[in-house]
Order: sequence, then C-alpha cells, then structure tokens
Amino acid sequence: MSLTAPLHGVVPPVCTPLDDRGEVDTASLTRLVGHLVDGGVHGLFALGSTSEVAYLTDAQRATALETVVTAAAGRVPVLAGVIDTTTARVVQHARTAAELGADALVATAPFYTRTHPKEIAGHFRRLRAAVGLPLFAYDIPVAVHSKLSASLVRELAEDGTLAGLKDSSGDEGGLRRLIVELGGREGRARGPVPHFSVLTGSELTVDAALLAGADGVVPGIGNVDPAGYVRLYDAARAGDWVLAAREQERLIELFAMVDVGPEQDMGRSSSALGSFKEALRLLGIIDNGATVFPQIPLSAESVALVAERLRGAGLPPVR
Amino acid sequence: MSLTAPLHGVVPPVCTPLDDRGEVDTASLTRLVGHLVDGGVHGLFALGSTSEVAYLTDAQRATALETVVTAAAGRVPVLAGVIDTTTARVVQHARTAAELGADALVATAPFYTRTHPKEIAGHFRRLRAAVGLPLFAYDIPVAVHSKLSASLVRELAEDGTLAGLKDSSGDEGGLRRLIVELGGREGRARGPVPHFSVLTGSELTVDAALLAGADGVVPGIGNVDPAGYVRLYDAARAGDWVLAAREQERLIELFAMVDVGPEQDMGRSSSALGSFKEALRLLGIIDNGATVFPQIPLSAESVALVAERLRGAGLPPVR
Amino acid sequence: MSLTAPLHGVVPPVCTPLDDRGEVDTASLTRLVGHLVDGGVHGLFALGSTSEVAYLTDAQRATALETVVTAAAGRVPVLAGVIDTTTARVVQHARTAAELGADALVATAPFYTRTHPKEIAGHFRRLRAAVGLPLFAYDIPVAVHSKLSASLVRELAEDGTLAGLKDSSGDEGGLRRLIVELGGREGRARGPVPHFSVLTGSELTVDAALLAGADGVVPGIGNVDPAGYVRLYDAARAGDWVLAAREQERLIELFAMVDVGPEQDMGRSSSALGSFKEALRLLGIIDNGATVFPQIPLSAESVALVAERLRGAGLPPVR
Amino acid sequence: MSLTAPLHGVVPPVCTPLDDRGEVDTASLTRLVGHLVDGGVHGLFALGSTSEVAYLTDAQRATALETVVTAAAGRVPVLAGVIDTTTARVVQHARTAAELGADALVATAPFYTRTHPKEIAGHFRRLRAAVGLPLFAYDIPVAVHSKLSASLVRELAEDGTLAGLKDSSGDEGGLRRLIVELGGREGRARGPVPHFSVLTGSELTVDAALLAGADGVVPGIGNVDPAGYVRLYDAARAGDWVLAAREQERLIELFAMVDVGPEQDMGRSSSALGSFKEALRLLGIIDNGATVFPQIPLSAESVALVAERLRGAGLPPVR
Repeated sequence: MSLTAPLHGVVPPVCTPLDDRGEVDTASLTRLVGHLVDGGVHGLFALGSTSEVAYLTDAQRATALETVVTAAAGRVPVLAGVIDTTTARVVQHARTAAELGADALVATAPFYTRTHPKEIAGHFRRLRAAVGLPLFAYDIPVAVHSKLSASLVRELAEDGTLAGLKDSSGDEGGLRRLIVELGGREGRARGPVPHFSVLTGSELTVDAALLAGADGVVPGIGNVDPAGYVRLYDAARAGDWVLAAREQERLIELFAMVDVGPEQDMGRSSSALGSFKEALRLLGIIDNGATVFPQIPLSAESVALVAERLRGAGLPPVR
Repeated sequence: MSLTAPLHGVVPPVCTPLDDRGEVDTASLTRLVGHLVDGGVHGLFALGSTSEVAYLTDAQRATALETVVTAAAGRVPVLAGVIDTTTARVVQHARTAAELGADALVATAPFYTRTHPKEIAGHFRRLRAAVGLPLFAYDIPVAVHSKLSASLVRELAEDGTLAGLKDSSGDEGGLRRLIVELGGREGRARGPVPHFSVLTGSELTVDAALLAGADGVVPGIGNVDPAGYVRLYDAARAGDWVLAAREQERLIELFAMVDVGPEQDMGRSSSALGSFKEALRLLGIIDNGATVFPQIPLSAESVALVAERLRGAGLPPVR
Repeated sequence: MSLTAPLHGVVPPVCTPLDDRGEVDTASLTRLVGHLVDGGVHGLFALGSTSEVAYLTDAQRATALETVVTAAAGRVPVLAGVIDTTTARVVQHARTAAELGADALVATAPFYTRTHPKEIAGHFRRLRAAVGLPLFAYDIPVAVHSKLSASLVRELAEDGTLAGLKDSSGDEGGLRRLIVELGGREGRARGPVPHFSVLTGSELTVDAALLAGADGVVPGIGNVDPAGYVRLYDAARAGDWVLAAREQERLIELFAMVDVGPEQDMGRSSSALGSFKEALRLLGIIDNGATVFPQIPLSAESVALVAERLRGAGLPPVR
Repeated sequence: MSLTAPLHGVVPPVCTPLDDRGEVDTASLTRLVGHLVDGGVHGLFALGSTSEVAYLTDAQRATALETVVTAAAGRVPVLAGVIDTTTARVVQHARTAAELGADALVATAPFYTRTHPKEIAGHFRRLRAAVGLPLFAYDIPVAVHSKLSASLVRELAEDGTLAGLKDSSGDEGGLRRLIVELGGREGRARGPVPHFSVLTGSELTVDAALLAGADGVVPGIGNVDPAGYVRLYDAARAGDWVLAAREQERLIELFAMVDVGPEQDMGRSSSALGSFKEALRLLGIIDNGATVFPQIPLSAESVALVAERLRGAGLPPVR
C-alpha cells in the first residue's frame, strides 16, 4: 500500500512479542496486528523504539517487519523504523525495509557520535536519495541526545527530503511553532509544504496536538487500546473536543501502567515496554510478556498492577 | 485583595521597566499594570523570571512589587515571586512581599546547591509555615535545574502546603498526568485537593492546557497582548476550542519576536525579555526597552523585527 | 593582608559551623580558622560553596566573613565568595566583602537566568571595575550550569579583569589546555599573563594538577585535614611526586566520608557538607555538625562511618 | 597474541583510512599499524570511537579489524571495539571479532535505549559468557549518555567479568577513587582484583593518570605521534615525572589540531577525527584524510592549521 495521501490518524508503534527462546513470536505478532487493524488504526509503525528495535538483531528486525507487512495485508500503510548510528548503516536497514514491503521509512539523527545540524541534514538527504520511499524524521532526543530544530525540519520538508515528522521530543511548544510556520491548523493545505505529515509521539496530549493541527499520533499504549485512540481521533476530527479530552483522560489513567516497575530495580524501558507487553498478554493477544534482554522482567506484583490498570480502563484481562 | 477563590485565568508575569539609570521606572510600570488590568487579566505575577527578578537588587524588587500592588489597587490579586537560592533567603523575601501587600507567594525549589526531593519538601513546608500567604510552587527546571515530581506536588497539595502550581517545566505530558490525578478536567472539584490551582507557563499551548483542565496561564508575551490571552481564555471557557486555537496561533506568531536577538550575540534571556520590553515601548506603554545588565541590548535591526511582529499580530507600534 | 604575590598553595573553602539555633557559631569558626592556619594553609576561602554560602542570609554571610578575617589576623590572605544570581546583586556582596576586609573576591558566572559568554564577560568586567579587589573567576558548572570556556578565561586574564581562576568544573583536560596556553608548568612566568593564579577545586587529583602547573588547591576536605594537603603540596613543590601521590591516596580514602549519607535520603550537599562538619566536630574543632536547613542531618550510623574514615586516615576522633 | 599479562602502556585507537570511494583503505591502514608499532606502542585498539566505528558498516568493520590484526602480526595485542546498542547485537560483533583474531573486546553500556545499572551488569555478564575473550568496559558517557559507576565496575572486576576498563568519561576524580579502591598505585597487585587493567582515554592528562596508578592510555592523537606517548609512558615508568609532564605539554599543543574545524560548520567528530586523519596524510602515512559521511570535510584552511600544529610539535609534514 503506497502512501498516496499524507499520513494521518492513529499509527501505533507495534510491539514485538517474543517466544520462550527470546525470538520473534510471529503468531503473536500477527494477532497483535489484527488487534490493531480491527481497532481502526490508520497505519502501523514497525521497528520503532517501542518495538525494542534497538534490542533486535538484523535478522529479528527483518522477521518482525515481514510479519507486520504480511499481517497488515495492505489494509493500512506500514512505516518501518531504520534505527542505527549513522548514514551507511541506516541505508542498509532502509534497503532491507524497502525489499520487505514497507511503505515509508522513519529515521533518527545520527547517534553515539557527536553530530551537527549540517551533518544531520546530509544524513537525511542521502538516505532519501538512496531509497525510493517516503521518509519521516524521528525526533527523539531521549534516545539520540540531539533535537531536530524547527528550521532544519522545515528546510528538509520544503526541499522534499521529508514526507513528515514523528515528534517524540516532548517539546509541545516547539511543535506548535513548527505547525504554525507550516500554515497552522487551518492553513496547512495552503502552507509552504502542503503534504507534510506531523505525527506526535506524545501520547498523553493527543487531543491537544490534534487541536494544534497535528495529523496523527504514534501512541505506545495504543498497542493495548487502539480503539481508544481511534475514538479520541474521531472525536477530535468531529470537533468534539470535550469528548476527545475525556477519552484522553481515560487513556492517561491506563498509561500509568508504565510506572509499575520500581525505579530502583529497572530502567524506564523495561518498565514501560514490559507493562505494554504484559497488558497484551493479559488481554489474550500475545502469548508472552517478556521484553528483550538485558531488560528486567516485571515481577508478579507489577503484573498485578498492570491488570488493575486494565480493569480500571474497562479492558478486563482474560487471563 | 485576598485569594478567596482558586486562582484562575490570565496572570501575566509583569515586566519591570527601567529608567535611563537602570532603576525601576515606576511610572512606566504603573502604566503597564493599567494596560494589563484594562486588558482583562485575572491576576498579576510580580517578580517572576520575566520581571528579571534574578537581576534586581532587593531594593529594586521591593520598588517593583510595591508599584504593582499600588497600581493594581485591589482590582486583581498580585502574586509575588520570592526567588533565591535556599529557604532562609527565600523566607526573607516572603516576609517583605507580605509586608508590601502581595496576595500570594511563588517560590522555586532551592537552586545553585544540589538538592533532593526531601529537602525540597522541607523547603516549601517551612516557607508556608513562616509566612501567612497562599504559596504556589514554581516548577522551572530551566532556571533551577531540578524538576518537581508530580508525587511531590501532590503530597504538598494534599497537606495544604501549596495553593497551586505554576508549571514552567515544558513537560505537558507530566502536567496532564498530574491534573488527571487531581481529578481531571471535569472532576477537579471532587478530587483530593479541590482548591489547587494549576497555572501553565507554557504560553504557546494554552488552549491545550485549558482543554486539559488547567486553571490559567502565566504568559510572558501576555505583557504585550493581554487582551489576546483573555480572548483565548474566554473562548476556551465558552467551549469554543477552535476559536481558542485560532487566537493561540496568532499569539504564537507574535511570540516569534523572542528570536530577534541573534544567538551568537546574546543569551535567550536578553533576546526574549528585550523583545517584550521593546514591544511595550513601541506600543507606547513604557518609556524604555532596556533590560538589566549584563543582558545585551537588542540592535536597531532586531527592534525593527519586533515592530514587524507587532504589526503582523494587529498591534501597530505608536512610535 | 594584600595579595602581593600570585595566590598559591592550599586554600581551603572554610566551613561555617552553626550553633543550636542555626546561627553562625563564631567561636567554633574561630577555632576552625586556627586549625587551618596551624595546619599550614596558604590562604582561606570564605563564603565558598563548601561554606554553605547559598544557604546563608546576608547577615550570616557577613558574620562568617568577619569572623574568618578577624581570626586569620593577616597571617594568610582571605578570599571571599560573592555568590548571587547576577551582576548588581554580586556587586553588593563584593562591596560588603571589601568593607569586611577580604583580600580578594571569588565570583561565578550569572545563574538562574540563561546567560551567554558575552554577558558573562560583561559581568566580570563590571564587577572588577566596581570593587578594588583582585577577582577570581569561580568555574562551577554543577552549581551555575554553564562552563567558562578557556578562551573567555584567557581573554579576561589578559585584559587584567581576573587575577585567577578557581576551577571546580572537573574538566581536568580543559584546565590542562588552559595552563599550556598560559605558558605551561615551566613557562608560566614568561607567558601572556605572568601573575594569573590557577587553583583547582578537584581535591582528589591535586598531585596531578600541581604536576600540570596549577598554583594551588581549594579542597573541601582540607577543612578536616589541612596538614595533609600541605604535605601533599610541599612534596609536589619538592619534586617528590610519589610522596605527593601517596598523600593524595590517603586523602582520597578520607574523602570517601562524603558518601555516608544514603542517596535515597538526602542530596549530595547534605551528605558531603554534613560529613565534613561532623568530622570537625568529632575532632573537637567545632561544637555542632549541623548543616543549614533544608539540608538533611546525617544519621548516627552515618556519623559512625565518618568516625571510621577519620580513624582510617590517622585522625582519631576525640569525642 | 593472547593477553597473558595485564594490558598496559600506549594503546592507540587506530584510525580507519578511507579510499576515494569511501571504503576502508587497507594499504593505508597497514601502513598506519606499522607506524604505530614502530612507534613503540604496547597494543592497538581497533574499532573504537576514533576509528569511526559508529560510521562503518559491518563489512567495513570486519575489513578494518582483519587488516589491523594481520598488520600487527602478533607483535602487540589487538583489542576490538564491539559497539552497538544492546546485548544481542554486541554479541554478534564480539563473535566476529573473535573469529577475526582479536585478543580482547571493548564494549560500552547499552545506548539509544534508557538503561539501568542492573541491566548494564547483565549486559556485560552475558557478553563475557558468550565469547571467550577478555572483556574491557568502555566508559564513554559522551557517546552512550550513561556513566559506569565505580561500584558497578568494581563488582564486575571482582567477579571476573571484566579484565579492565577503558575510561573515556573525563571524570578523573572518580577514576582516581576507583584506583584507590582497587589497591592504589602501589598496592594494585595486592588489591582485590590484581589483574584489572585501567586505561585512560583522557589523552591530555596521561602523566597524571599514570601517577595515579593507571596502567595505560588510549590516545586518539597517538595515531599521529605514537612515539611521543611512548616517551611519556617510559618517563613515567622511570619516575621522571617532570619529563613526562613536559612531553604531555608538547602533545597538548599538538592536540589543539582538533579545534581547526569551525564549530558553526561541523560537529566535534568531524573536526577532531578529520584533523587526525589529515595529519596522518600530511605525514605520508595514509593516502586520504577523508572521514566517513555525513561528517564534514576540513577546509584547505583547516588543513593548513593542522600542518602548522605538526610543525610546532616537531613533526614536519612530508606533503
């Protein structure tokens, strides 16, 4: 499925279920894709940070992406994360993603090494030139430790390098300024870059982002409750902002599951991704809630808290 | 004027105009207060970061606060920033503010020194006990380099230490979670702390904050266009979110004046506060656009850009 | 005592003992100064970070400085920290320090506000012009959250603004480069700024700093064991680097007392300054080990660990 | 060559010369290894940050490592960097490195993802278990954005996971404390971990690190002047600390070449690695000074400054 229109709506970053040996559980992943598409999502983001892409070998990445593409079966577009330190390595992932049938690519700035805006611009331009797929910039300072400036994004939007932005920077004011520069919530179609998609990764303020003129959202907890985000999105599109806010509030309470893993025992990744995957297991969608090593598994007590959050949000566990 | 009801609405952090000798220009400051109250604001925040409080001597701070209180003349409540490194020094500022007629205090966590949540809690509790005025926590990591956690704010709200929060952290997701924990946009009155006021300092996403359930906003650029923020606030209260967003977009374009000072020549404070003060001068409200030393003055070219932004927002300069 | 020669040697940042009411205990402070001068130190730094300057009111600062100056009685020079957010406030502290008899001033870059190298340069120049005392720049990013660049320090050294640098940045490589630019360990007298004093605050690598050509050290734990640092300094001056390193190792083991306060219970300031003060109490030099509120007191268990460190370093407690 | 004794001495992180197509220039790399071994170095670190490992594809990494191993021909041990985001990916690099003949591995903490000390410990332990080569921890917060604590390093040293530490953290005080905990400069052989090698990456304070008891150094600029670092090391081993410091000062002046690339035009990596490679070209050792894309090439003016630094350090360019 090609991206014939600007990407919009709910585009969850698909979790990667594992089997007992720690390999990609393709049956569970296929069920998860079904759960998401049935929930009404508008696209799928495979191999994003929430997929544990940074923990997967190249072979595991390929298996995961192939499974998502096959399971999506053209019903919604599939974006593929191409996460690696610098350009040559990212281009290799991008070629693989294109071969496996991804509809678009999502790439970060270089990381591990100390970089510079001019180098970041060159990075995205070469990547775009090397592989014939729409390219989204993935602004995620918590992972890559640099921020894409609004002027850089705009420059790369205007010259056709970027088809859109996935903003996980948490800088809502900056994103708002960028949207205004691109024509604002009402003038985007007439702005300097009519087809530039702005997707927010800030899953706790999606009503706000849509009110600001964002096109869509990439919510990690959307793995657990895709239909909730679709209701939120539909309410916003219908102009019912109070309903959208109410749905967002329910999702915020659900999201609190990310705190179940005690800080002294594990990193934020173990806790948040572990809670998403345990929730999916409790809901009967995947078979195993494990995260990739060296992440720390949730305790039984933490899993019980996840179950409690699910019940509180009207999503009772089935096991 | 005492704070008989939870603080809400538009509460600008009042700029401190200077005369040619660098002293507080009380006549200009009195006119500025008139401009703000006439613009419909619901309160005034004197001696906040935007007032250049960190640049003012104790005598200058007293002059500025006294002038604001006198000019407000009980029409709206006056909050006073009590900004200093640690408790004993802050208590002294708080006593002075109480004597000068402030209606409430706004204090940050300790800074310069390395601190800890338990020490921050002690700091706010002792401050509250020492001075008989409602106390707002001022969460401003960009200045004090620590973040108030939601659990700490909630603890200090529930035990009555804090009357509210002025959130300049930029962490909109975190603020949203706090509001939900306090009962959400619709359940705040029935929540654990019914009278806790949440004010956002994120002046580019005020529509979003109000949709989320915040009580008000403390916008620096509200010095320049108080009526714009009041229209935004009124539209939100009336449930006209699209009108609120449109007003917010206009204010974002106006706000771009903060970038007129080239980064290689000056700090962010010089550029942002200088543009606000030059805008007020261009609008005929204050006599002099200077900021306090060692901030760098704006060039004539930068001032021309400020004027352009004013015209673009429908606020034509009168000089 | 004026600074007739470049400052050098061991210059401890003098702790500020408190009495039971939390006020400056001048008798204990006088004894502490005696302990330091008897230990052979070459200067005293009053109102530095280790003195808890950021926790003291202006009146308490004046009492502490006056006590140190009186107790020093001209035997060694007294440097005074003039710690506040920006220029006008710092100038006030500097005038007071001059009146109270300080021999030199030690000032940081502006903090709390966002600053810029050009603003920092203006800050130091105006301060130097306002008060007729030699001025040391205090590079302490952990407190002020900006780093003085080598080029800025060199510029301010060459134009006579600065008499020296107190480097608490922890950037030993950067300090080494600065010393080389100033002529190196052997060519300093013939360098571009012959009388510029470089003092390191990195108290665990003093042998290294002296080998690199630094003039002296400002060691917090030098309050507890001034004679140890003097022996280290003398060994280095005599070219006995192995003896210097051995003394440094002993002082590192003593320094481990700063970790006695558990991280989950208190900030780094409470733990480090609390251990220094409890050690001084255990040695019979001051009456009370308390730190200024809102710092957290050490537990009895932590104090026992301090005593153990003292014994391990050959400094047995007397109470 | 197996690591029969604790690693010590000068172990440069070998640069990776490129040909005109951007591929590894094995002839130049072979000459570079010859230059280093002839310079007297005690080991070689292939695929470290200075090798641009984060910019190289897996195939290029293999070519580079194989070339270094072959050229070293058993004269000195070869350490191989195994740099990737998390455990499974690092294990793959480690297996390849073992097959290609590396004598030891150098691995960082996980990066890109948010991690935790318990996860880092698991990461190193699994890596050690998976591949039968001595393992060095690579502490490089500027790249991976977390710091290995002294207690974690010590734990992993004592249980045999780690053979040593390559410390590029810049925290000289922390490294000094670790060395003291391990028995100090004189007591290392009798300490809790007799064979643990401490190598510093702080190439501007090597005399200091050796005085502190470090075993060796991994100097980037050691590519350019290996004999200089060997002289420094030999002087330190002979106890001639003044001679060591003098040699260090000369190398600091040479090192200033890393600043030739203007900050506004390129990142720190482009500037530093570009200057090292241009210096090697000017000295006739490699054919091409290019760095890997998207790093920015040095201008002719910058190259001229590199040449000047070479001449200043007594290393006249031959082209």
